[in-house]
Amino acid sequence: MNNTFTICLPEWVEGFIAGQPELFTSPEDRMRLAIALARENVARGTGGPFGAAVFEMETGKLVSVGVNCVVPANCSIAHAEMVALALAQQSLQTFDLSSKGKFELVTSCEPCAMCLGAIPWSGVQSVLCGASEADARAAGFDEGAKPDNWQQTLKSRGITVTENILQAEAAKILKEYATAGGKIYNPSHCKPKN
Amino acid sequence: MNNTFTICLPEWVEGFIAGQPELFTSPEDRMRLAIALARENVARGTGGPFGAAVFEMETGKLVSVGVNCVVPANCSIAHAEMVALALAQQSLQTFDLSSKGKFELVTSCEPCAMCLGAIPWSGVQSVLCGASEADARAAGFDEGAKPDNWQQTLKSRGITVTENILQAEAAKILKEYATAGGKIYNPSHCKPKN
Repeated sequence: MNNTFTICLPEWVEGFIAGQPELFTSPEDRMRLAIALARENVARGTGGPFGAAVFEMETGKLVSVGVNCVVPANCSIAHAEMVALALAQQSLQTFDLSSKGKFELVTSCEPCAMCLGAIPWSGVQSVLCGASEADARAAGFDEGAKPDNWQQTLKSRGITVTENILQAEAAKILKEYATAGGKIYNPSHCKPKN
Repeated sequence: MNNTFTICLPEWVEGFIAGQPELFTSPEDRMRLAIALARENVARGTGGPFGAAVFEMETGKLVSVGVNCVVPANCSIAHAEMVALALAQQSLQTFDLSSKGKFELVTSCEPCAMCLGAIPWSGVQSVLCGASEADARAAGFDEGAKPDNWQQTLKSRGITVTENILQAEAAKILKEYATAGGKIYNPSHCKPKN
């Protein structure tokens, strides 16, 4: 029986990050990186059209990145946000990022139900979203069942939510992926029936 | 920058599983294993009081197990259910368990918001829960913001939910953990304020 699993970023990520600036000061700069990761992930054939990153909130220093690795890793939990959060925690050697300062999760697309649920446990104190749930759905992706007013569920826990950062640019990646016939990997049996 | 993370079950798990029967035919047999994993995880000091397992639904063959590894792995997503689901997918080399047959997730405690969100993506077709959200909260654990009638959100996707299997026994582990002063590891800043 398997007793271990490993999630690895695709090999291209290291070189890609090496070519980036050290600091990402504006929300748009941070989102541009998340979108570029999503775009590159599709172009390289290493996963779905989603990218994310964790930054030190105040300095804009990049702490970790994530891309969707569901298909190559055979792992349905390997969404870009989950990968970025787990890698940030590995880098800082803590299960609670808030114990090490203020950190921000930046995601090219509004989080699905799983990633939304993971955000409070991670210790990030801010979330920036690019594409919306409607953009994800339009491309054929299922975001799952989220609480009504999910933004408020984070805000009530002291986590800031900022939506629609470079939204059109972020949505374009999803649309192009769908148009090109990219794999939509939600289990087919589980589409909601109501 | 870190580009990989690994979740490993504690070392004791292999020997523990070797001593178990090959098949777990009844819901209670399956839950007893999840509860025993939770209990052993606390007794061995390897994580929080939560255990889970994935079974072939019809035969009762054990596919994978999970225990909460949040603190030792420095990883807030390493809840027992997430670990069990990811390990089942590694064993079967698929991101969608439903492509390989019918599988059941058995968890010693009702899933939190993150694990609930992960269930439809995993491809399991049934979930058995032991302790309730109220039991988890009574021990000091935060289950996050779940949709109202979360059971229905799974059922509408073709996933059966059965609650309160050996509930008293499952709740006892949580209560004993809290009474013994076990670590409650949700980030302190993120308690809901409304």
